[in-house]
Amino acid sequence: MQVSGACCENVLGYMPVPVGVAGPLRLDDQEFQVPMATTEGCLVASTNRGCRALQASGGVKSVILNDGMTRGPVVRLPSAMEASNIKLWLEKAENFQKIKEVFDSTSRFARLEKLTGCVAGRHLFLRFQSVTGDAMGMNMVSKGTEKSLAEIQRIFHNVEILSLSGNYCTDKKVAAINWLQGRGKSVVAEATIPASVIQRVLKTSAEALVDLNISKNLVGSAMAGSIGGFNAHAANIVTAIYIATGQDVAQNIASSNCITLMERSGAHGDDLYISCTMPSIEVGTVGGGTVLHPQASCLQMLGVKGASSETPGSNACQLAKIVCATYFWRTVPDVSSSSGTLVRAT
Amino acid sequence: MQVSGACCENVLGYMPVPVGVAGPLRLDDQEFQVPMATTEGCLVASTNRGCRALQASGGVKSVILNDGMTRGPVVRLPSAMEASNIKLWLEKAENFQKIKEVFDSTSRFARLEKLTGCVAGRHLFLRFQSVTGDAMGMNMVSKGTEKSLAEIQRIFHNVEILSLSGNYCTDKKVAAINWLQGRGKSVVAEATIPASVIQRVLKTSAEALVDLNISKNLVGSAMAGSIGGFNAHAANIVTAIYIATGQDVAQNIASSNCITLMERSGAHGDDLYISCTMPSIEVGTVGGGTVLHPQASCLQMLGVKGASSETPGSNACQLAKIVCATYFWRTVPDVSSSSGTLVRAT
Amino acid sequence: MQVSGACCENVLGYMPVPVGVAGPLRLDDQEFQVPMATTEGCLVASTNRGCRALQASGGVKSVILNDGMTRGPVVRLPSAMEASNIKLWLEKAENFQKIKEVFDSTSRFARLEKLTGCVAGRHLFLRFQSVTGDAMGMNMVSKGTEKSLAEIQRIFHNVEILSLSGNYCTDKKVAAINWLQGRGKSVVAEATIPASVIQRVLKTSAEALVDLNISKNLVGSAMAGSIGGFNAHAANIVTAIYIATGQDVAQNIASSNCITLMERSGAHGDDLYISCTMPSIEVGTVGGGTVLHPQASCLQMLGVKGASSETPGSNACQLAKIVCATYFWRTVPDVSSSSGTLVRAT
Amino acid sequence: MQVSGACCENVLGYMPVPVGVAGPLRLDDQEFQVPMATTEGCLVASTNRGCRALQASGGVKSVILNDGMTRGPVVRLPSAMEASNIKLWLEKAENFQKIKEVFDSTSRFARLEKLTGCVAGRHLFLRFQSVTGDAMGMNMVSKGTEKSLAEIQRIFHNVEILSLSGNYCTDKKVAAINWLQGRGKSVVAEATIPASVIQRVLKTSAEALVDLNISKNLVGSAMAGSIGGFNAHAANIVTAIYIATGQDVAQNIASSNCITLMERSGAHGDDLYISCTMPSIEVGTVGGGTVLHPQASCLQMLGVKGASSETPGSNACQLAKIVCATYFWRTVPDVSSSSGTLVRAT
Repeated sequence: MQVSGACCENVLGYMPVPVGVAGPLRLDDQEFQVPMATTEGCLVASTNRGCRALQASGGVKSVILNDGMTRGPVVRLPSAMEASNIKLWLEKAENFQKIKEVFDSTSRFARLEKLTGCVAGRHLFLRFQSVTGDAMGMNMVSKGTEKSLAEIQRIFHNVEILSLSGNYCTDKKVAAINWLQGRGKSVVAEATIPASVIQRVLKTSAEALVDLNISKNLVGSAMAGSIGGFNAHAANIVTAIYIATGQDVAQNIASSNCITLMERSGAHGDDLYISCTMPSIEVGTVGGGTVLHPQASCLQMLGVKGASSETPGSNACQLAKIVCATYFWRTVPDVSSSSGTLVRAT
Repeated sequence: MQVSGACCENVLGYMPVPVGVAGPLRLDDQEFQVPMATTEGCLVASTNRGCRALQASGGVKSVILNDGMTRGPVVRLPSAMEASNIKLWLEKAENFQKIKEVFDSTSRFARLEKLTGCVAGRHLFLRFQSVTGDAMGMNMVSKGTEKSLAEIQRIFHNVEILSLSGNYCTDKKVAAINWLQGRGKSVVAEATIPASVIQRVLKTSAEALVDLNISKNLVGSAMAGSIGGFNAHAANIVTAIYIATGQDVAQNIASSNCITLMERSGAHGDDLYISCTMPSIEVGTVGGGTVLHPQASCLQMLGVKGASSETPGSNACQLAKIVCATYFWRTVPDVSSSSGTLVRAT
Repeated sequence: MQVSGACCENVLGYMPVPVGVAGPLRLDDQEFQVPMATTEGCLVASTNRGCRALQASGGVKSVILNDGMTRGPVVRLPSAMEASNIKLWLEKAENFQKIKEVFDSTSRFARLEKLTGCVAGRHLFLRFQSVTGDAMGMNMVSKGTEKSLAEIQRIFHNVEILSLSGNYCTDKKVAAINWLQGRGKSVVAEATIPASVIQRVLKTSAEALVDLNISKNLVGSAMAGSIGGFNAHAANIVTAIYIATGQDVAQNIASSNCITLMERSGAHGDDLYISCTMPSIEVGTVGGGTVLHPQASCLQMLGVKGASSETPGSNACQLAKIVCATYFWRTVPDVSSSSGTLVRAT
Repeated sequence: MQVSGACCENVLGYMPVPVGVAGPLRLDDQEFQVPMATTEGCLVASTNRGCRALQASGGVKSVILNDGMTRGPVVRLPSAMEASNIKLWLEKAENFQKIKEVFDSTSRFARLEKLTGCVAGRHLFLRFQSVTGDAMGMNMVSKGTEKSLAEIQRIFHNVEILSLSGNYCTDKKVAAINWLQGRGKSVVAEATIPASVIQRVLKTSAEALVDLNISKNLVGSAMAGSIGGFNAHAANIVTAIYIATGQDVAQNIASSNCITLMERSGAHGDDLYISCTMPSIEVGTVGGGTVLHPQASCLQMLGVKGASSETPGSNACQLAKIVCATYFWRTVPDVSSSSGTLVRAT
């Protein structure tokens, strides 16, 4: 096995995590075999059952709504008035352009697309958002942010840089900002499952599934004080694919943000329309753990290994869609237990 | 390698995740070598540096404040009045006792300790909390919950069981309920680092660290709309130890909930007092991925393999303390970059 | 007009806020004329229309699920270990009993019912919950809390009392804790509206209303990152009744927490079942602004003036139910504009 | 008294709410006498004491960081792909411009400044943000939104308008979106209080106040699961001024969002630097309850009555600053009780 010096230190060896495969996953008229690394029994089996059972449904459609990694530094000024002054200065198109030039100069791929922020007393929190090619992009955006802050400091001498991350990114922590404004890739996926499939394969009805989705994924999560957790275990799928494909697994926290919606549809209202909306999937196909051979093989299996030379970023976007769609297909078999009742635990 | 049929299906093979070791971690007058499986470069190195550098500080003290896995089913009644009636019925000591007897009969280890809940219209969400020995305990609590619901249904015929999980547990999803009421093990850890160590090893001062902790971990997370994310990347440590020790990695979502507090202390105010509070660490030392040999070896290395025969649950509790303490030691070197400035990205 | 020295200082005069009346409000087989003080045009009219139009529906049923005002002080210990020690001590039944005796001795009405809390490093946050007769109860609970803290300090000399309110109550601020654990009165109300009334009076259908409730009050609020705001303007009603009846109007923040659920019901699925769940209505019928004559007259009009001599607390509980039910009746006409479309702004 | 038909229906009379005055409030080198209508004893007195005591401190500085009322409708498309398509279409500058023209044509004052949104399955939530002159602006923005939706529907025939408010505004309900993205006026205010004043007037020290602010307003609110409530009762001040000046009092929910920060400052670290950040103050000086004479007199007293003919919007902005500054001055005396200890209840 190759040296993993870039990924880990004081290496004792390798922890073998079982990898199963689910599929074929039908997504945007393609088919995928999805590798999942997990030690949670039944996860791969139920995902696989979902994928196969629903082949007949015509597959899931998906779209990327936003693509941008963020870094949210905190700087401090002698006064709130000065902090506010800089925020207002940055909101002017010509000033944004100046900072963008500095930011974009730090990488072939980085392109500053949004620069938002907030003042809290004399603290100024900024949120730099940039496309990052096929990389997950934290390092790239950090580099651009660092240079941009230096430029801001050059213009406003009073700027004190407290931290390149002021937890306003927000990376690997629960935060409404990712749910509301997105981070990484924002994906939405949808499909319609005919009544016949629901009845034959899932042994239930659209009506029962819609009812359960409201009670559990909307009302239940609302009662539990959730922000972004309006689903039934997106995290399981996200985590398993992340381990298999060399992602930064701790990023499953924002990446698992998801709302699952279900409606009765069709002429008789007995078909099932489902959608999954995941605004903050943080993935890459280059860098990090993707350089390890086995992980790279899993990316290869999905056709998204390395950087896309034609359309930079398209491999990472495709991986985000696969993550969303794999969870998507699991939402359905999952809500129906083998005994045909709707009692389930996850 | 052993068959992993209990942990994964359609197994193609094993994904090797590099395992590094950080230590010695000084915790409650013991020393630990902590295995971490990760592909994030520098994570193990910086944790290791923290552990070693701070050996001189006398180590970290920790305590378990709560120990209980939860399951939060949703049931429905014909009316809100009936749902309310059952909630009020369950609040009476003698009725709780009845349900507890049923719950406790389902396992040698399960002991129903709390049964709370809320009404939302004619839905009733309940939250069963139980100790679970050295198991993480989801299956155990699910079993007890299922039987308890059957008993409730026997008494109140109108109860319609919608789902064994109504997202009110809350498992693997962002939810204030875990932050406020705890899930799994609630751990708090603390230590004081002398000024001399801060200066020599960390090249900074207590004052600067306290200042940064407020700006980033308290104010920054508040501005980002966080619930439970008042820290700098607890998730990295949680995730790496979880992969290494066969935990359910998707549970890092609640398990990474953490608030880090820092204060100046000592006669001159130049020592640093730090605490980490993590209310919802979901871990076990039996079941799930812990049955795999390499994962079991990592637990063995920490002295917490399998079930504790003397004090059921003590291995899982010790593992939770190690998770908290490992993150704990990393908070400090982490806030100080090699260049001695406080600019950091994570 | 009477001297208002107890309610306001540096009094220039009285701000006249227009008071309208909505009703009859049919609630638990009684009828009420509800006074509302507001300067928001159409609020009273639409509430009134709702009340009257739906007289035919048989009225709303309501229940109190919890009754307890809370105070959440913060104390500090030299170490997290000591803070944890006190928390664990307080969880023992005999120690709770000791504190309860002290707490209960401070008032004829105060009865400590729950004492929960959390540790954050060496801070200990406690939450004292008590019934408070017909008073809203903040002062009463504060007094009991103060004495209880003194007793705790007597036993644990190291306790440093930082603030009688550590924002853990939580009073007049957005906080998940009130949504999850309740504050003041927790009320749930429900009714079923026949298809004929929906069609004739509301010019719409159960199907359309259920659909809108999901899209707006569940999904919309989820997308906006709401905790406890799953409704359409409960705050309007709460505020208007609070001004009219001398409540502490700033408490409408937690008091307006509400989830509105709608379902199709009846044999043909064309009737409408609605429920409103409001876990934290903070009201009283004695003390505060209720001592002013006009405000007292409004309470009189509702039959809940002053203290109930027979069943202490029943007047305040009745007022909470009226608040919930008044909002309840407005949910329906409100979702349907006069033109029969479902476009509405509030 | 004038007819209040525009503000209330079924009018029985007027509820007299006691009005006290606090001041002089020193703000941006001007002085104000602030009318507050309340029935909460001590509120005016403590605010007044704060204002006067701190006259010597040189006053507070304030700034408006954002000015825009929002309306957040929900529309639905046959598919998530179509909903996404419209979102992406609206993000293009030329299309935004088209919608802006329609929006701006509906009022002399409305100017569409931001149009953001999110997709949730086949739902599309939009958030129209506009300046609104000196009006609070909900009606104005609603009108512009309605026309804009009609235009969008003209271009995309499949658009089904579900509700002019999809709770994505978010009006009068707890929501992270207002805390993160602002609503109405975003104000920040700051001042420094010399050690001598703290000691003589407040009988405490900067150190003690800073300590309490962290424990209560940052840590306490974090532990309670707050989003936007990092303060000690901003709501009291907001509410009292809102009642006195004819605002829509139910809007105190978002308007009370506030983070209060304190730091030791000055050569010896014994002065106190304070800031208050309030991102979503929803106020107006024309329309609604401001048309009533007594309410108009209160606005007059503050020099912000009616529309500013020179700089439309400046009266409303000034009122927002006064709200923020009045709370600001109260933060300090409030944290110190008359006995000189730091125990306080609010």
